[in-house]
Amino acid sequence: MWSAQDIQMMARAIQLAKRGRFTTAPNPNVGCVLTVNDEIVGEGFHIQAGGPHAEVHALRMAGDKSRGATAYVTLEPCSHYGRTPPCAKGLIEAGVARVVVAMTDPNPQVAGRGINMLKDAGIEVQTGLLEVDARALNPGFLTRMETGLPFVTVKVAASLDGKTALSNGVSKWITGPQARADVQRLRARHPALVTGIETILADNPTLNVRFDELGSVVAETGVLDESNVQQPLRVVLDSSARLTAEQASNLFGFASPILLVSTLAYSDAQLAAFPEHVETLVLAAKDGRVDLAALLAELGKRVNAVLVEAGATLAGAFVAADLVDELVLYQAPKLLGSHGRNMLVLPDWQTMDSIPAMTLCDERKIGSDRRYIFSLRRAD
Amino acid sequence: MWSAQDIQMMARAIQLAKRGRFTTAPNPNVGCVLTVNDEIVGEGFHIQAGGPHAEVHALRMAGDKSRGATAYVTLEPCSHYGRTPPCAKGLIEAGVARVVVAMTDPNPQVAGRGINMLKDAGIEVQTGLLEVDARALNPGFLTRMETGLPFVTVKVAASLDGKTALSNGVSKWITGPQARADVQRLRARHPALVTGIETILADNPTLNVRFDELGSVVAETGVLDESNVQQPLRVVLDSSARLTAEQASNLFGFASPILLVSTLAYSDAQLAAFPEHVETLVLAAKDGRVDLAALLAELGKRVNAVLVEAGATLAGAFVAADLVDELVLYQAPKLLGSHGRNMLVLPDWQTMDSIPAMTLCDERKIGSDRRYIFSLRRAD
Repeated sequence: MWSAQDIQMMARAIQLAKRGRFTTAPNPNVGCVLTVNDEIVGEGFHIQAGGPHAEVHALRMAGDKSRGATAYVTLEPCSHYGRTPPCAKGLIEAGVARVVVAMTDPNPQVAGRGINMLKDAGIEVQTGLLEVDARALNPGFLTRMETGLPFVTVKVAASLDGKTALSNGVSKWITGPQARADVQRLRARHPALVTGIETILADNPTLNVRFDELGSVVAETGVLDESNVQQPLRVVLDSSARLTAEQASNLFGFASPILLVSTLAYSDAQLAAFPEHVETLVLAAKDGRVDLAALLAELGKRVNAVLVEAGATLAGAFVAADLVDELVLYQAPKLLGSHGRNMLVLPDWQTMDSIPAMTLCDERKIGSDRRYIFSLRRAD
Repeated sequence: MWSAQDIQMMARAIQLAKRGRFTTAPNPNVGCVLTVNDEIVGEGFHIQAGGPHAEVHALRMAGDKSRGATAYVTLEPCSHYGRTPPCAKGLIEAGVARVVVAMTDPNPQVAGRGINMLKDAGIEVQTGLLEVDARALNPGFLTRMETGLPFVTVKVAASLDGKTALSNGVSKWITGPQARADVQRLRARHPALVTGIETILADNPTLNVRFDELGSVVAETGVLDESNVQQPLRVVLDSSARLTAEQASNLFGFASPILLVSTLAYSDAQLAAFPEHVETLVLAAKDGRVDLAALLAELGKRVNAVLVEAGATLAGAFVAADLVDELVLYQAPKLLGSHGRNMLVLPDWQTMDSIPAMTLCDERKIGSDRRYIFSLRRAD
């Protein structure tokens, strides 16, 4: 069904789409390639919400050459008027003859409408080419569209024997500078970070994205710069509403949105000391702490994806509650010893059937450490 | 100094040497290639102690063509009459014109004698080509020759979070069948295994090499078969001399040598029930257990290398006492949880400077698991 040319062009569209991975949120990453007689006449990707969609970039580049062209698009062209006119209309007006779509729109209310618009205009439309790869471009967008919940990634940095620190808490540095820079890239791709008050009290972290540490990906995208790098919503779980402005001086000192989530209301005195970019939210308790499922339902109203960068108790609680889509483990080639602190506080499982099902999705060397990405969703 | 031809031929000699890795103990692995005008006229490797050395195999294959040849040998040719005549003499008599040696004999009492014999006969001799690779052929032989102690490898199979079992001891299986077959190959390369009585009591293991599970390496060596596969000396640490023949029925039931090491003597009743292939040895105690340094000094009289396949307490004690040369870690992509059993019982280190220095030497995927090989010797 698909020619080598088709596969090659869609692969290129997917590569293009990836260049937007730090900047398109909350929109999905989309790439588009236009060809005439197997030659690329236009290409582009969605860079930023509010800006042109991938198809628009490609059509602009192609100009008159789009007449009779084949368009390869990683996601079904949109059919509605938003901040930009519908891309299906743009493709029709440009005289494109054939459209190959990697995946249809995941929103059941609009899925197929863009394709129908194209077909009604007499354009040949084919779908499903490299769909798995196209889906992998937008796990957060798809998960939230399909479930209403954000895609949840837990990040852990540990030794070979699964420890994050010695028994006395000494931990600097388990992993090397390259792995720490990779964490900056991970943060930069996430619209929200979740941590716990214990991490704030222990480390007084800022939890921002440090643009200077993003490294070569900035040049690779060709579009990421200090002005459009996205700072994640910083979510701090503070069940008992204990946090004071003094304790969170670095967190509060960086002026981008913070969401403090508790099960009790903060006092007026606390609130008065919080800067304007701090929002508070009271959620239901479960076992005396913020109900993590309720938290994700709430965050699902705001963002596509959440990165949990927390201590072993909170990160373990997400895993134990089966709320995690992906585990990113940075593993340093060291032994911290059996007295060291465990990387995740998890239940006392009694059978091998109880342990989480994990599928290794990616592994690579990062400096002297290794990074593993596991999917924690059971295959259907 | 070295031509591409030299490097290629020595690399081939090293590859040949490896084919003896399951069969030459206690002798080192040695390979030899003979060339005339850049053509290989003879080659061979040492297969088995008591059998011909690598040079003899190569000279036999070359026959008259060895006159004027260059010989590439991974270890300095021997100069003494043992079970076979000296190889230096054989090379001289065959009329070899040039000998390239990867490394000299590590025994300081004989080092250089073979080379001097060759030089005295007017043969051009060069040394040091691919020496690092040649040394890696025989870590046990070299360590024992240089220190009197065996090379010590600790094998561990654990989850990503550094656990070997759930809290209740359930552990079958952490790693997959390919990793378990690899352990058979690891055993088959070791002249001695060390374990503790707790492992015997818990699992009643046989601790033999199961030839059927060695897999494709049997064909790769071309010389390994059921008749020459070497069964390791099975060393069991039983500090309090508690073990009975009933408890070790599988261990004792396999008729190859066993060494029971304790700090107290076994009773006559115990000894009477032990089969003939069981030897007992009383060693000094340290902290109420067999002194591991004394154990290695004793094993250094017998074998080049020791594989520690023990529980977390004994394996950890070897690491903590800084007696380990190499850690082989089979890591399964699973989380057993923070209540699981730690892979190594280690001291409660208080600073990052206290943790063992480890250098990653090799890592590869084995089935769905990963195998890491770390050197635990600090670089000089």
